[in-house]
Amino acid sequence: MSVSELRRDPVTGRWVVVSTERPRADDFDRTPVVIQPDDSCPFCGGHEHMTPFEVLAYRNGSPSNQPGWDLRVVPNQSPIVRVEGDLDRQGEGLFDKMNGIGAHEVIIESPRHEDTLATQPEAGVERLLRAFQERIQDLRRDIRFKSFLPFKNHGAAAGAHLEHSHSQLFALPIVPREVRDELEGARVHYTAKERCLFCDIVRQELAEGRRVVAENGEAVALAPYASRSPFETWVLPRRHHSRFEDAPGGEVAAVARLLRDVLRRMDAALERPPYSFVIHSAPVSEPADFYHWHIELLPKVTRFGAFEWATGFHRNPTPPETAAKVLRETNGA
Amino acid sequence: MSVSELRRDPVTGRWVVVSTERPRADDFDRTPVVIQPDDSCPFCGGHEHMTPFEVLAYRNGSPSNQPGWDLRVVPNQSPIVRVEGDLDRQGEGLFDKMNGIGAHEVIIESPRHEDTLATQPEAGVERLLRAFQERIQDLRRDIRFKSFLPFKNHGAAAGAHLEHSHSQLFALPIVPREVRDELEGARVHYTAKERCLFCDIVRQELAEGRRVVAENGEAVALAPYASRSPFETWVLPRRHHSRFEDAPGGEVAAVARLLRDVLRRMDAALERPPYSFVIHSAPVSEPADFYHWHIELLPKVTRFGAFEWATGFHRNPTPPETAAKVLRETNGA
Repeated sequence: MSVSELRRDPVTGRWVVVSTERPRADDFDRTPVVIQPDDSCPFCGGHEHMTPFEVLAYRNGSPSNQPGWDLRVVPNQSPIVRVEGDLDRQGEGLFDKMNGIGAHEVIIESPRHEDTLATQPEAGVERLLRAFQERIQDLRRDIRFKSFLPFKNHGAAAGAHLEHSHSQLFALPIVPREVRDELEGARVHYTAKERCLFCDIVRQELAEGRRVVAENGEAVALAPYASRSPFETWVLPRRHHSRFEDAPGGEVAAVARLLRDVLRRMDAALERPPYSFVIHSAPVSEPADFYHWHIELLPKVTRFGAFEWATGFHRNPTPPETAAKVLRETNGA
Repeated sequence: MSVSELRRDPVTGRWVVVSTERPRADDFDRTPVVIQPDDSCPFCGGHEHMTPFEVLAYRNGSPSNQPGWDLRVVPNQSPIVRVEGDLDRQGEGLFDKMNGIGAHEVIIESPRHEDTLATQPEAGVERLLRAFQERIQDLRRDIRFKSFLPFKNHGAAAGAHLEHSHSQLFALPIVPREVRDELEGARVHYTAKERCLFCDIVRQELAEGRRVVAENGEAVALAPYASRSPFETWVLPRRHHSRFEDAPGGEVAAVARLLRDVLRRMDAALERPPYSFVIHSAPVSEPADFYHWHIELLPKVTRFGAFEWATGFHRNPTPPETAAKVLRETNGA
């Protein structure tokens, strides 16, 4: 094998240079996520008055906006898009714009400041995915919204502003470019083969085995062939569903168990790395039966500059086969 | 105006949320670039033996790989792609790969450790652009290469591994996704209008004025309408040329003067920010007369997570009109 390999992601067509040489120490930037106690944390149990009113909560019979909950969803206090108003689409010569209409919600995953998704009991991740589903099912009745982005940034280096474990949900009147590119890749494959591209990827990866991180009866975790960065991991349900919010409860529970398993393996193998994940799902605004919802998880263990961003050309110093082997052999239990 | 606006980039179609509210302090992450003295810097004059042999140098008659130069180009000591070998394109089921063939060169912009592009005399930036052109003209005789990426990362936060001012050049057997998307956007516009999209953007921006940062007889610096991050700036030649490496000397000199002017304004207004820039140019592998070469410059003044990366959906807390006004009114002289 050559010292490096150019690999093409079959979904988006992006090229990645995967190094097969020993990586250089200065490729990496490791800052373990350490959660500091914070008496004034607005997300802690007992501080419900410090957040906007909740739009959803899982509670043991206690009244709204009071203690006694496992998970709360509240509007973001500094939203970057707002529900009120008209889209007011306009052209400005060559340019297109509309008002920043949308929903921007925060899912507080636990009343306990020190919890993380990885350290919470199994029910924690399942609750989070279920809350995402419930909120999307509610928000999609608003026909202005075309796509939903459920995601989490964990740790300041991954873009989190508060340390208390939380996720976020955007409802947007547009379809982001990455989603559009994935849809297009999946559509082209479906048109040519009459098969789902993601189903094909899962089938090939399970047969091949080298990039499988973990699996259970209903879900598979993979290091994707053209991983953009070290330890990138996708969690895919085995069954074909285009939209996350319509996935059946048993499947979501299985994906949640596997996601937690992967996060625990990463905490052990990579020393509690900052990470982001995004749930990729077909937009509500168009038929997209050929798409297959999944989660893309990117631990942040390298520095990356605007170069990657400005070119869409990525360099990954850790082959996904190596990353998958490390995680597969790590005991995250 | 609403609190935020969704804007669409006319070239790539990506959507950006531009906030029009006062930004929050924690949106920003400002780490001025400070260059520390380093006696063992391999890029300093007198240390020519610490680099691979030069492939190009601008010197005052002195012999190769000796002191007496203004700029040197050397192969990267730890290249991520290599010139030797065959592409050996292969499929692996659904996946596509080839060997990591390419060139990866480093342009050392000055023998003096403390110089930056902004603080060097005017000739410095022009020398850099001219060296990029010369190296591409040489490398493009190798028909394995489809595209060239001339770029610079300045400061560790922008991905630079060494502090001594340098740029990099990739020659690649693929066309990166961002370049492909820009080509497609420019092609669609040209097909519909029989006009270059970038020429149209320059014309509209000069007429409108609010996003113009600076200009001279042959080039224009703009804060793009759908800026991805605060103070993103594009430098475009007024004249239409699809390929940077074929641009005439006078035009390159004018672009160089304007780029330096913008970098000096950023140093003054943003306190010597880390930054990256990439020269966007049509691939050599295909006719692309409809494309218009330009430079995209991104100062790194915000944190950004994998979220932006994973979705192609960006949030920019500084409207480009504000950024352009700040830079326009800054004395970078």
